[in-house]
Amino acid sequence: MDALGYYNGTWGPLDEMTVPMNDRACFFGDGVYDAAICYKKTIYLLDNHVDRFFNSAKLLEINPGLSKEKLKAILNDMTAKVDHDEVLVYWQVSRGTARRNHVFPDGPSNLWIMIKAAAVPDLGKKVKLVTVEDTRFLHCNIKTLNLIPGVIAAQRAKEAGAHEAVFHRGNIVTECAHSNVHILKNGTFITHPADRYILKGIARGHLTRICDTIGVPVEEREFTLDELFDADEALTSSTSTFGLGVDYIDGKPVGGRDPELLEKIQNAVMADFSMATGYQKP
Amino acid sequence: MDALGYYNGTWGPLDEMTVPMNDRACFFGDGVYDAAICYKKTIYLLDNHVDRFFNSAKLLEINPGLSKEKLKAILNDMTAKVDHDEVLVYWQVSRGTARRNHVFPDGPSNLWIMIKAAAVPDLGKKVKLVTVEDTRFLHCNIKTLNLIPGVIAAQRAKEAGAHEAVFHRGNIVTECAHSNVHILKNGTFITHPADRYILKGIARGHLTRICDTIGVPVEEREFTLDELFDADEALTSSTSTFGLGVDYIDGKPVGGRDPELLEKIQNAVMADFSMATGYQKP
Repeated sequence: MDALGYYNGTWGPLDEMTVPMNDRACFFGDGVYDAAICYKKTIYLLDNHVDRFFNSAKLLEINPGLSKEKLKAILNDMTAKVDHDEVLVYWQVSRGTARRNHVFPDGPSNLWIMIKAAAVPDLGKKVKLVTVEDTRFLHCNIKTLNLIPGVIAAQRAKEAGAHEAVFHRGNIVTECAHSNVHILKNGTFITHPADRYILKGIARGHLTRICDTIGVPVEEREFTLDELFDADEALTSSTSTFGLGVDYIDGKPVGGRDPELLEKIQNAVMADFSMATGYQKP
Repeated sequence: MDALGYYNGTWGPLDEMTVPMNDRACFFGDGVYDAAICYKKTIYLLDNHVDRFFNSAKLLEINPGLSKEKLKAILNDMTAKVDHDEVLVYWQVSRGTARRNHVFPDGPSNLWIMIKAAAVPDLGKKVKLVTVEDTRFLHCNIKTLNLIPGVIAAQRAKEAGAHEAVFHRGNIVTECAHSNVHILKNGTFITHPADRYILKGIARGHLTRICDTIGVPVEEREFTLDELFDADEALTSSTSTFGLGVDYIDGKPVGGRDPELLEKIQNAVMADFSMATGYQKP
């Protein structure tokens, strides 16, 4: 199968799948999600993604209705049905099916899965960013389906010929529309604290662990737009991009002053992915 | 039919309707909605609701894909198929169908309608509120499908034995989870300005116009939690409740000091509804 959709035990070609109109995802965005990258049937960092997914569900008081082990088994089973070596495995849980009414419904939650082709990132690629004022709610730590500000920001980036939008609250940089953002300065990896203003990215956590392993100091602290523009290197991270260097923000050149350290971190990230999945760079 | 669902020209019993898994409402909450109350096939204040709906869509850069007149015709047509005198007509537009990708897709938007039984409100009823810190995004003026904070707040209200939750940013009262909130003080109707912190309720606008008509001064200004607790009367308003007096907030008695003015406003609201729809209070 080219791309697969799954809904509460039923699965089929993604583009043909349907769901009940009364699923609360449809009118409240009332659910949480997670996604992982998979190479030749090995879903990378799956335990971390499933742990975060259960935490997001708990924070929204949604019972996923199955164990972590059962979820992992279903994700692995569904992924095996898709005819690509490199895929993105996305799943979400919504707070059940009922006629529209704000208060929580009785009855079980709904499990959705969407699996489609994706590419293991080329870490030599650079990304361009645009800045966007961060007007999102104060629950960015929960990976919810309420994603309109991210959608609009991503569109602004595309229209500007950029790859991602970087959010800031006043002068403080938070994260990107669908990535985290970090800077390297004087040999230190600096990233926004994992508070309610950002999603605690799995790739972000992985980068910081890898920095620890290879001896790069990590500072979790707020940093400003000025610091971002003046960074030795800026980088974004996400499940599907691992960690990419930034070369332009709002059309102005950024970074490029510590390519050795950036590459050292990226090589360590890719080595970990290769060890976990057997991937070899083409 | 007891309750009707409609999706892009297809309609049927609401609880049996399905939609594509790839509709962007399903994973981004990427759409806007509106809803109106209907008595014996007359959808009350329909022009106002349709105007606001088109404005919400414009603010999110979604093309509804049909004219206001065509939308009204479809809403009237679908409402006529439902076997109840008193119904709530809900509709939304989502930003099209495509595999999950933040940037705007090519292709048309999707029109959803959900119609179900509802009751014309009994304005003699009082409502109880709970207070909830307002942690929502700064686009509350757009009637979007990103509604998780409202869902959680409404659930908190239910758990406390209350009817609605009233949001506040610090000490400033904004609105309720699915209503606006206003106070009467010294004969004046006071309501939060229609900025990005609240939805500009159709019922709210209607109340202010009715106050103008019957000679009650209206002040659009921020008011505090202290003013809410100390109001002569507090009231909530929404499409399905018109305008209801509040008797308790967080378990403390509120209002009850100007019942004549409250009733005068409510009587004028109900008279307008009756004139528009032919409704007679049972």
